[in-house]
Amino acid sequence: MPTFEQISQQLDHQAIEVPSWAYGNSGTRFKVFGSAGTPRTVQEKIADAAAVHRFTGLAPKVALHIPWDKVEDYAALTAYAAEQGVQIGTINSNTFQDDDYKLGGLTHHDPAIRRKAIDHHLECLQIMDATGSQDLKIWLADGSNYPGQADMRSRQDRLAESLATIYAELKDDQRLVLEYKIFEPAFYHTDVPDWGTALVQVQALGEKAMVCLDTGHHAPSTNVEFIVAQLLRLGRLGSFDFNSRFYADDDLIVGSADPFQLFRIMFEVVRGGGYAADSGVAFMLDQCHNVEKKIPGQIRSVLNVQEMTARALMVDTEALAAAQQAGDVLGAHEVFMDAFYTDVRPDLAAWRESRGLPASPMRAYAESGYQETIEADRVGGTQLSW
Amino acid sequence: MPTFEQISQQLDHQAIEVPSWAYGNSGTRFKVFGSAGTPRTVQEKIADAAAVHRFTGLAPKVALHIPWDKVEDYAALTAYAAEQGVQIGTINSNTFQDDDYKLGGLTHHDPAIRRKAIDHHLECLQIMDATGSQDLKIWLADGSNYPGQADMRSRQDRLAESLATIYAELKDDQRLVLEYKIFEPAFYHTDVPDWGTALVQVQALGEKAMVCLDTGHHAPSTNVEFIVAQLLRLGRLGSFDFNSRFYADDDLIVGSADPFQLFRIMFEVVRGGGYAADSGVAFMLDQCHNVEKKIPGQIRSVLNVQEMTARALMVDTEALAAAQQAGDVLGAHEVFMDAFYTDVRPDLAAWRESRGLPASPMRAYAESGYQETIEADRVGGTQLSW
Amino acid sequence: MPTFEQISQQLDHQAIEVPSWAYGNSGTRFKVFGSAGTPRTVQEKIADAAAVHRFTGLAPKVALHIPWDKVEDYAALTAYAAEQGVQIGTINSNTFQDDDYKLGGLTHHDPAIRRKAIDHHLECLQIMDATGSQDLKIWLADGSNYPGQADMRSRQDRLAESLATIYAELKDDQRLVLEYKIFEPAFYHTDVPDWGTALVQVQALGEKAMVCLDTGHHAPSTNVEFIVAQLLRLGRLGSFDFNSRFYADDDLIVGSADPFQLFRIMFEVVRGGGYAADSGVAFMLDQCHNVEKKIPGQIRSVLNVQEMTARALMVDTEALAAAQQAGDVLGAHEVFMDAFYTDVRPDLAAWRESRGLPASPMRAYAESGYQETIEADRVGGTQLSW
Amino acid sequence: MPTFEQISQQLDHQAIEVPSWAYGNSGTRFKVFGSAGTPRTVQEKIADAAAVHRFTGLAPKVALHIPWDKVEDYAALTAYAAEQGVQIGTINSNTFQDDDYKLGGLTHHDPAIRRKAIDHHLECLQIMDATGSQDLKIWLADGSNYPGQADMRSRQDRLAESLATIYAELKDDQRLVLEYKIFEPAFYHTDVPDWGTALVQVQALGEKAMVCLDTGHHAPSTNVEFIVAQLLRLGRLGSFDFNSRFYADDDLIVGSADPFQLFRIMFEVVRGGGYAADSGVAFMLDQCHNVEKKIPGQIRSVLNVQEMTARALMVDTEALAAAQQAGDVLGAHEVFMDAFYTDVRPDLAAWRESRGLPASPMRAYAESGYQETIEADRVGGTQLSW
Repeated sequence: MPTFEQISQQLDHQAIEVPSWAYGNSGTRFKVFGSAGTPRTVQEKIADAAAVHRFTGLAPKVALHIPWDKVEDYAALTAYAAEQGVQIGTINSNTFQDDDYKLGGLTHHDPAIRRKAIDHHLECLQIMDATGSQDLKIWLADGSNYPGQADMRSRQDRLAESLATIYAELKDDQRLVLEYKIFEPAFYHTDVPDWGTALVQVQALGEKAMVCLDTGHHAPSTNVEFIVAQLLRLGRLGSFDFNSRFYADDDLIVGSADPFQLFRIMFEVVRGGGYAADSGVAFMLDQCHNVEKKIPGQIRSVLNVQEMTARALMVDTEALAAAQQAGDVLGAHEVFMDAFYTDVRPDLAAWRESRGLPASPMRAYAESGYQETIEADRVGGTQLSW
Repeated sequence: MPTFEQISQQLDHQAIEVPSWAYGNSGTRFKVFGSAGTPRTVQEKIADAAAVHRFTGLAPKVALHIPWDKVEDYAALTAYAAEQGVQIGTINSNTFQDDDYKLGGLTHHDPAIRRKAIDHHLECLQIMDATGSQDLKIWLADGSNYPGQADMRSRQDRLAESLATIYAELKDDQRLVLEYKIFEPAFYHTDVPDWGTALVQVQALGEKAMVCLDTGHHAPSTNVEFIVAQLLRLGRLGSFDFNSRFYADDDLIVGSADPFQLFRIMFEVVRGGGYAADSGVAFMLDQCHNVEKKIPGQIRSVLNVQEMTARALMVDTEALAAAQQAGDVLGAHEVFMDAFYTDVRPDLAAWRESRGLPASPMRAYAESGYQETIEADRVGGTQLSW
Repeated sequence: MPTFEQISQQLDHQAIEVPSWAYGNSGTRFKVFGSAGTPRTVQEKIADAAAVHRFTGLAPKVALHIPWDKVEDYAALTAYAAEQGVQIGTINSNTFQDDDYKLGGLTHHDPAIRRKAIDHHLECLQIMDATGSQDLKIWLADGSNYPGQADMRSRQDRLAESLATIYAELKDDQRLVLEYKIFEPAFYHTDVPDWGTALVQVQALGEKAMVCLDTGHHAPSTNVEFIVAQLLRLGRLGSFDFNSRFYADDDLIVGSADPFQLFRIMFEVVRGGGYAADSGVAFMLDQCHNVEKKIPGQIRSVLNVQEMTARALMVDTEALAAAQQAGDVLGAHEVFMDAFYTDVRPDLAAWRESRGLPASPMRAYAESGYQETIEADRVGGTQLSW
Repeated sequence: MPTFEQISQQLDHQAIEVPSWAYGNSGTRFKVFGSAGTPRTVQEKIADAAAVHRFTGLAPKVALHIPWDKVEDYAALTAYAAEQGVQIGTINSNTFQDDDYKLGGLTHHDPAIRRKAIDHHLECLQIMDATGSQDLKIWLADGSNYPGQADMRSRQDRLAESLATIYAELKDDQRLVLEYKIFEPAFYHTDVPDWGTALVQVQALGEKAMVCLDTGHHAPSTNVEFIVAQLLRLGRLGSFDFNSRFYADDDLIVGSADPFQLFRIMFEVVRGGGYAADSGVAFMLDQCHNVEKKIPGQIRSVLNVQEMTARALMVDTEALAAAQQAGDVLGAHEVFMDAFYTDVRPDLAAWRESRGLPASPMRAYAESGYQETIEADRVGGTQLSW
């Protein structure tokens, strides 16, 4: 097995985008609990995201969600982010909270509503131009609740048409990333329910269209790392939305429910070239912190990704290939597990210190007083939420 | 197979409670869509529930949810319901929307919060006294999101203690009905996740404690009718929360996702004596109408239950038993399916007319002008919602 | 809604292939139960398949499985089938029962074993030439049980290469149909686990390569009819393997576990043009009759498909489209359900009689004496089984 | 966190029963692959089980399965086991492989077949007397494949009666342990599908009746450690069948699919007193080694259990309780994860050496020549299999 030292340089370029909405309040359909210190403005969300980066060195970009993060002056927002030490990352569109979208957006049977949804995406492209963001991420809530309610086939065709209209406006260095999800908020059919559908839709668009894999958006017992491997093989893995799940789209802290799955996913990322600095794969969190504090929840999350990346990089791939080639089932499995069971945390603490970062970002944050400051300062106003 | 005529009298005593919250706005964590005509007061919810009963003859009771349906004067509310032609049914408690309950209610590690949750239930008992309601239904949102977050074992013991405190205050003719649910809003562990847990908790309380089976609260591929049969066998099936699901706790219109499952459930209800007029099993809807109109959604739901009950009553049980006894697998299955495939809708239309009800409650409602009236009248105020 | 009469002509061209292996013994890993009358030869299997066609008019072809159904003289076998009144249908390959395939076939890391698996398929092509069969159906058992055991990515590339080698030998009027399955017999990863993978593999081959959809091969809660619609939209739905499931790949009688799902699937088939006589979609059963009699099990199965096809054809598509276009959720759902709830069985009985078939194929078979004859005659020899 | 040294003594009493059938050939319904060296006799299976114990010190007992392991002289078999250094453990009954049990055993509608199934269990009790085994483990394959095929309610009553008849013959120091399983080999209903059913059945019998929890026998997304905690709380956790799963009852090597789940399970075992030397909880493997070598497969399995037990023992329970009591969600989770992420393997290697065991049982076995010897010696005869 490689030593930590042998792989440690590869950790230097790791970057995980954090979502602006993780710093606002979130919850379930039953209740959204508020919490002290929650941002009231986009700027406060960016400040919190920057804190995550300061303590970890892992989160140099913050993803925005439109219209939640709309501002008058995007140049100013971009400058503000830069001052805080982070950049604006992926722009996420939203066609699920306007009343017009009750029965769909880009797939709607009414051309006027489709046009409205398309125009919303064109506005997102303008925001990308203004912020220097390269990726437009589209997650569709479109679907239906009752058999017969909608014509699934026509909706698929309308989706293709709507996406093509948006795609046509992309600049050369911009990408459209289409996210799939098996269910919720629609409970009978979803218009982009699986990676196959996302793939055929983006293949029809062109080379700047990619698939986003959200780790919580699959049916029970789906082998997610297989999909990672397949999308990398096809050159269409655009980005990850990391989170963790026991049941449905739980949006828990990545790695908290099944750390071994996160290891397997990161192994396939490395195996398929997705971890290379120029791979074009964007790594993002997409999580809710319903009961835990939000900033430490994000710190824990990027650390979990880093720890599993280190383990994945430490797999002895030569020994693995040799055992696989020999048909040695238990031997190959053991080589694989050796890396997973290795405790990389002390080495990572040293690695951090050698780069001017705190050995324990969780403890450093707790001791920094940042949380107390925002809880004291952010009084009044309206806490942001979904 | 029995003729419809032979079973039609058994349909006369069918009663399905409707939930007050079905008439308010509901939705997903992503969005709650409003709709014209949505009630602003408990009274308007009761009026809508009464409309469902008027058009179907199936829904003589309306379940309340506390504190959503709190009023100053329950005697007046009860009288109002009676004027409208319905009664107050089950009282549902709520320990998931107050900030104090973020980490639990009846199971909370803090005795002060447990006491608050217990007191809320004692208040519900007072409302039952005031409204003549007989059942206190308890659905717990209690659980945890992260392994290690909570001590599952202690919480189970604290739950037993809290329930015993509430149970001690029940009047002789009142019941405590405990509902289980596999997940949501908690995503790692839920304190009452399955019928087994609900059963051992109610058995520890006494004979007035029962289990509530919500048809959408199980893991994928659970055989729900088996649980119905088992709980009836054990004398602990207190009530049903009817709804329908493709994925999780979708809360769709009962019978819309898997009508055959509803048939199988109603067959076991009949088989196990749960349909007898004095069985003590309360049949309720617990649904959300996120994209469809609410009152016709409820009408459709009670009709679905009625149609499947008729089919279940029409199973030729003698022929079925004979085929089962002969080990005739296909023969027994065919006897069972014969009843399911029989189209009882024309007979039910005639049955309704013979009892002074509209042949088609859906059409009669649409033509009644009720929807237009409430949409016109209910302007201003705040639409009720979860 | 159209009358049965209006749609009855469309039933005339319905044809459902039956699998030769359905007539042999099958079971679970725990036990394969034998049964009286089970075929000892391919000819006896064909005779039983022909009986299914005689009583139903629905099953003019029988699919073979190689090597289970290997014979010396395929011309003679084809002639024998013709005498019995049926044709040879799809040829199914088998690379899961030879010891060499323990760790894979077309994806194996050892080129010698891949070559052996490829050669097996070339032999199947020769059998197709000899029998006039047009479709080569490939279901791969390839996969792995333990993380690290195999290199998923290389296996995907080797699969592409192996399939291309086979595809190159297809005659102009022959097709390669690739089947996917989420799991079993492999329990960690499967090399063709989902429709997306099957699609990208067949798209890489050419226009004569298609996807086979087995209705039992999906993760829990997958919307199967959506995949039907999508594959038809893409022109890549080659064939169906019909069966039914409550849990995993149960291989129950089609329509027995979720008749409404079968209705929804047949509706999308019709909607997407897959039911047209020249659609190129082959409809097949792929079932096990572990506890029920095999021939009536097959009769019941083709009847279930026919009954649901009739219902699907009876959907009032104009009313449906109007309601969908109006955003009338409950109205559209009701139009859809109207067809499902219509009892087409009496009309189908009359339709059969008008075509010289027995009104009740199940009863006619039971009264025909065929079962008694085979049970008496087929004594000695070795009953065929998986 | 406790040091390894502080918990190492608690590892001394750990004992994991191995199943005799793990050493025979096993597989799926598609194929059972043979392998060199597979036992032809019960004695050879016991010899292999003893090898697992010799290399690990963890597996002092071997469970038998009747009739697979029937012999003429059980005293001689017991003596043979003792010579090899192991004892006979749990006796497992089998009512799923005789033709009479096609439609059930202890629940069968025919009293003659129920009697036969009961008598089989009485024979198992005699074998327990002869071998000194204390536990009779009952896993029922009983169930049905088609709705209507069987009367679930009567079967539950007949099961209660059959079990009572068997229970009445238990000696004072013997136990009946009832195993539940959600599905397979039955695909519609299973007579003991869940822990709730197993519990109510054993509670009706008496104090010597317990529940067996097989870690692979649950619906997708079931929280297994919750059930562990609940059954321990109720004093009814009799035994574990350890294995691992990605999909259904995969019977993979315990800990290979989700090592974190195994950790959580062992934590609840310790938390609930189930790991105490006198807890009465029997820990067993129940696995299939379809593609890997069997003896090293078993060695890997008991090591996995040991490693996770060590981690579970190392959880800092005081810090955990303090964080839980403070409502510190992330803090409590981190305390929990700290133990999981700790690499105990070097300490365990030292622990083994200090007790005269090989530091690496896997390597020691590979270098011992045992495998080569049995492959050379066990030629001819019939390899044992399910």
